[in-house]
Amino acid sequence: MNICVNGYGTIGKRVAEALSAHPKLRLVGASKYTPDQDARLANIKGIRLFVPSESIKNFESKGIAVSGSVDDMIAQADLVIDASSDGKGLANKNGVYLPRSKPALFQGGESEDIAEMSFNARSNFDAAKGKRYVRVVSCNTTAYCRLLKPLAEHYTIKHVDAFLIRRGADPNDAKGSALNAVEWKAKSHHAHDVQTVIPAISIASTAFKVPHTIAHINSMSIQFDEVPSKDAIAELFSKESRVAMLNSATTSAQIMEAARDIGVKRYDTYAVSLLMNTLQVNGNSAFMSFFVPQESIVVPENVDAVCAHFGMGKQESMKITDDLLGIGRIKKELEAVFA
Amino acid sequence: MNICVNGYGTIGKRVAEALSAHPKLRLVGASKYTPDQDARLANIKGIRLFVPSESIKNFESKGIAVSGSVDDMIAQADLVIDASSDGKGLANKNGVYLPRSKPALFQGGESEDIAEMSFNARSNFDAAKGKRYVRVVSCNTTAYCRLLKPLAEHYTIKHVDAFLIRRGADPNDAKGSALNAVEWKAKSHHAHDVQTVIPAISIASTAFKVPHTIAHINSMSIQFDEVPSKDAIAELFSKESRVAMLNSATTSAQIMEAARDIGVKRYDTYAVSLLMNTLQVNGNSAFMSFFVPQESIVVPENVDAVCAHFGMGKQESMKITDDLLGIGRIKKELEAVFA
Amino acid sequence: MNICVNGYGTIGKRVAEALSAHPKLRLVGASKYTPDQDARLANIKGIRLFVPSESIKNFESKGIAVSGSVDDMIAQADLVIDASSDGKGLANKNGVYLPRSKPALFQGGESEDIAEMSFNARSNFDAAKGKRYVRVVSCNTTAYCRLLKPLAEHYTIKHVDAFLIRRGADPNDAKGSALNAVEWKAKSHHAHDVQTVIPAISIASTAFKVPHTIAHINSMSIQFDEVPSKDAIAELFSKESRVAMLNSATTSAQIMEAARDIGVKRYDTYAVSLLMNTLQVNGNSAFMSFFVPQESIVVPENVDAVCAHFGMGKQESMKITDDLLGIGRIKKELEAVFA
Amino acid sequence: MNICVNGYGTIGKRVAEALSAHPKLRLVGASKYTPDQDARLANIKGIRLFVPSESIKNFESKGIAVSGSVDDMIAQADLVIDASSDGKGLANKNGVYLPRSKPALFQGGESEDIAEMSFNARSNFDAAKGKRYVRVVSCNTTAYCRLLKPLAEHYTIKHVDAFLIRRGADPNDAKGSALNAVEWKAKSHHAHDVQTVIPAISIASTAFKVPHTIAHINSMSIQFDEVPSKDAIAELFSKESRVAMLNSATTSAQIMEAARDIGVKRYDTYAVSLLMNTLQVNGNSAFMSFFVPQESIVVPENVDAVCAHFGMGKQESMKITDDLLGIGRIKKELEAVFA
Repeated sequence: MNICVNGYGTIGKRVAEALSAHPKLRLVGASKYTPDQDARLANIKGIRLFVPSESIKNFESKGIAVSGSVDDMIAQADLVIDASSDGKGLANKNGVYLPRSKPALFQGGESEDIAEMSFNARSNFDAAKGKRYVRVVSCNTTAYCRLLKPLAEHYTIKHVDAFLIRRGADPNDAKGSALNAVEWKAKSHHAHDVQTVIPAISIASTAFKVPHTIAHINSMSIQFDEVPSKDAIAELFSKESRVAMLNSATTSAQIMEAARDIGVKRYDTYAVSLLMNTLQVNGNSAFMSFFVPQESIVVPENVDAVCAHFGMGKQESMKITDDLLGIGRIKKELEAVFA
Repeated sequence: MNICVNGYGTIGKRVAEALSAHPKLRLVGASKYTPDQDARLANIKGIRLFVPSESIKNFESKGIAVSGSVDDMIAQADLVIDASSDGKGLANKNGVYLPRSKPALFQGGESEDIAEMSFNARSNFDAAKGKRYVRVVSCNTTAYCRLLKPLAEHYTIKHVDAFLIRRGADPNDAKGSALNAVEWKAKSHHAHDVQTVIPAISIASTAFKVPHTIAHINSMSIQFDEVPSKDAIAELFSKESRVAMLNSATTSAQIMEAARDIGVKRYDTYAVSLLMNTLQVNGNSAFMSFFVPQESIVVPENVDAVCAHFGMGKQESMKITDDLLGIGRIKKELEAVFA
Repeated sequence: MNICVNGYGTIGKRVAEALSAHPKLRLVGASKYTPDQDARLANIKGIRLFVPSESIKNFESKGIAVSGSVDDMIAQADLVIDASSDGKGLANKNGVYLPRSKPALFQGGESEDIAEMSFNARSNFDAAKGKRYVRVVSCNTTAYCRLLKPLAEHYTIKHVDAFLIRRGADPNDAKGSALNAVEWKAKSHHAHDVQTVIPAISIASTAFKVPHTIAHINSMSIQFDEVPSKDAIAELFSKESRVAMLNSATTSAQIMEAARDIGVKRYDTYAVSLLMNTLQVNGNSAFMSFFVPQESIVVPENVDAVCAHFGMGKQESMKITDDLLGIGRIKKELEAVFA
Repeated sequence: MNICVNGYGTIGKRVAEALSAHPKLRLVGASKYTPDQDARLANIKGIRLFVPSESIKNFESKGIAVSGSVDDMIAQADLVIDASSDGKGLANKNGVYLPRSKPALFQGGESEDIAEMSFNARSNFDAAKGKRYVRVVSCNTTAYCRLLKPLAEHYTIKHVDAFLIRRGADPNDAKGSALNAVEWKAKSHHAHDVQTVIPAISIASTAFKVPHTIAHINSMSIQFDEVPSKDAIAELFSKESRVAMLNSATTSAQIMEAARDIGVKRYDTYAVSLLMNTLQVNGNSAFMSFFVPQESIVVPENVDAVCAHFGMGKQESMKITDDLLGIGRIKKELEAVFA
């Protein structure tokens, strides 16, 4: 199974590294369109780089080693992971993947109808088998799915009000949000996006953007038929490999610091961290907040979507991915730091 | 009616200015304990300054004009507005006001049992008549009361989930919150604080603090017996002089900019701004967000609490205060900018 | 003398307001190209609004009153102040002003060769007389000129190293700079820009951009033949109406807070504030830092450039402008607060 | 050689980890005074924890494993690295180390007279041999010494003007600096601090604090007798193992991102990064800016100070420390990313 990554930015570089270490998949390489720092990074990390054929000389004149053209890369791959910037995926599909009959995965920044399905490993892994076009949902939607799917399997959810405090920009974004301000977006797309994965759920969402870079801090107020106890919730999520339960954290910075301290690469935690001290029950509704590592949470989902496409079993795939990325250790150690 | 203000910080300086322009009240002056920039400001603005008797020489040696001691100030006043920093109000009450049998107003940073009642002009004005010790509730609580009281008068509220995105610090605070981080506080005190004013209401709150300085951006999910329409909500709040309804604002910075542009002193808006584009209804619950100008929203409440204490009628007092501070114009012009 | 303002953004709205109160000039109105909040603001403030003829209906359908087309506005004006966004001034010059033989002022975001001269009232007022195209230099350059011109008149300056800590964005900018980061720009354009006004000066500059919105905090290390004493510097700038000398300020937030407290509209201070506690002398060089209110500092310069164009005398013009904007009071009160 | 670390915060935890991997030193353990997340972290990382004897039960009741009392730890050590918060080092010296005749290293937050010498490995390694009390200078001072010492060895430096843009707080600090503001400190202590290590140098410094968390971005304007060329400077620093030369970086965020991408633990870079695109020469002075990783830059200096105290040779010690921390790889890869 030969995979290539089209786009080597925040998601692309992480996914390419994960794939290059996967025991059952082979990374052909990744594409770059500008000869910048990320291109040099790929060289340092030994990720084979493919660039537009007309740009090869330009890259090489800057001392950047190139393994071939983007066309070469796609020709060598059985599946493309499209990790291009928001909105470019559709042009790639129509201009590149469809003409070459090449199956592809897209990211959550694309519209849902770019693909035959929207994917979250925990929620609908098996449905991706054999699909030619699959969309891995975005970071926040992934987090909501990881939490709501187990809850929905055990309890009757009547309605979810989602409330997002989004980071203004990723750490390396040159621009991204108003300084010293809060922005709001009523009826944000996140609610509908969850429904592309878990169709039956009633959910509404409101999003706020604030000037920091570490993580999205999201919350849900969930109305149940019968609200589960805190212990039942803890018991439920203890079985979820990609949900960490932190008892004593009180700022996003503490979680990032702990990830740095325990030696997590790039302080990427992959897991969604449920903030147990925010959990409260009022009548038949439960409120809970969670920490979403916006840069890394979709990395395991991309790897699993590849495996699902090729027909690997859900348990095997998620286990391999978790081990590959050290998610088990991350969950265990974060939970121990914030015991 | 002679009033003095004990403490000349963020709230004290605003309240002192308001009182000095009040047609029915006389400001004795304000107290300062350190000879800093705020003391020089009081001189410039013509607010009479009173300092500890042992500090008079120190202030004067720095070129700051002093009108007497703090003891002098309190002796000349029929009522003290305590605007000291959080937690010092109790020491003032026990050490200064009680021994001198001097009635006093306290701020929302104090514990509720410092006073005989917690005050919000819209909600319980008349109850403050003749009370010796009254607490004006804090900025966020004031905003919740201004919105919930009219709603509760017209609809049956079953439960309120409050969600606060707090500013990390006031613009001039030297310290205040973690940089580049979100902090959270589950079961924040705000819910109970609302109940000190509107006892019957069922409410829970969760607070988040983010690194910006402009305003608190709060939200409520309100469960009704019968949810009002958007038009009904707009109709209801059109009658509230201290609630502005903004249709098109999408960031806190825009509202601050508009306040600057329309020539509002200090960009203080006094009103709570309901963000109409966040309003949505799901089943029997309504969601809405609002902008709370943390420095100024309690200023009219302090003025009204004084008038209530002395037995003035609610309508007369609120009208005088609104005119004094230009709140009618602010509401009208903000609503026009964000029509 | 009929003046119009083409563009009603951060600079345009301030300049239009200043002109509308000028005793010797008449404001025709200002132009808007999108029917947004600033257009509504112009209506509220009574600034006559002109829009592209094809957009008039669109503005009016949104309830925004329009006084005519942009072409009408320009036809009625003897001089256009171009306050459009960076880089659009040249297109306006070639497409609109030149064909109509209409004199125009441009802002500092334009390249220097858009105009016959680059203007700073203190430095080269008289040279603007009768010039058809004049560029008012940018906020930082204006501040450097206001400080360096008086120094150069009294002392021999051998070299200036300029060091800028720029605000990341204006308070209302939706985007602007990296969050949680410092950006740098070696050999920034500011040094050369100063030379477009004061040609003889040797100056180099390096600029840093940081994530805050209040003001640019700039510094100079000036090598003199004979370095002036601190008293001599204070004496020199006491005569400059647009330079305030603050002794005790230690943060940009304090200065903004003081501007709010003394009742300055929009907390616009117009003056450059020299931070006297940063002043130090090492051998023959002097170091000093200063606060540049990026939104307002060029407003008086624009007004003066108009007057200079029409041949008014320098002293008369600057005096009228200073009085119009209250700069004398601002200087005096800021200096008193930070005595 | 048994070493203990008294204090397990930002510096202490990094130094303890470095020592625990050192081939010639043995870490006894580290002390903690509150049973918080850092204590749990030490357990996870296998750092032996020592706490006040009266607190042992409290720590253990919270599930934190303790290896003994702080007194036990100090008794077992030949040398204490005091990594306590600013200003507590002196109390520790007088109350704990002097009575037990225990040699100790202190951090740069302490006053210079706490120790017999102020230490920077590159500048004065050998002088620490056998000294009982040594102070490792602070992060910024360390950076200045690493750059100025090689320059001073090859060129005659007449004067240095230092200009610091300090981060407002470390990533995990709960408080630290004014939000949305720039603070300034004229005649900051940094200039004198450099002179405690390189006594002959003429230097002045001014410090600014801005609201971000990543790194200090400092600059120097150096007056030489004869200014070196850019090539000569590059040649000079190519030999310095703890100075990286980055050609194309333009924001602090990019450097942090690169450190994350190349897999540097905690994104700690240890080296000072000279920003080569800021280098410019004006007459006989050179201007250059540099990136100071405030959390990690003193870690190698602490390790070397221990080795210097025990009489190890400078080259051997610095080589072991560099290898231990991977500084050679970090320098090489950062330079490659920003080639």
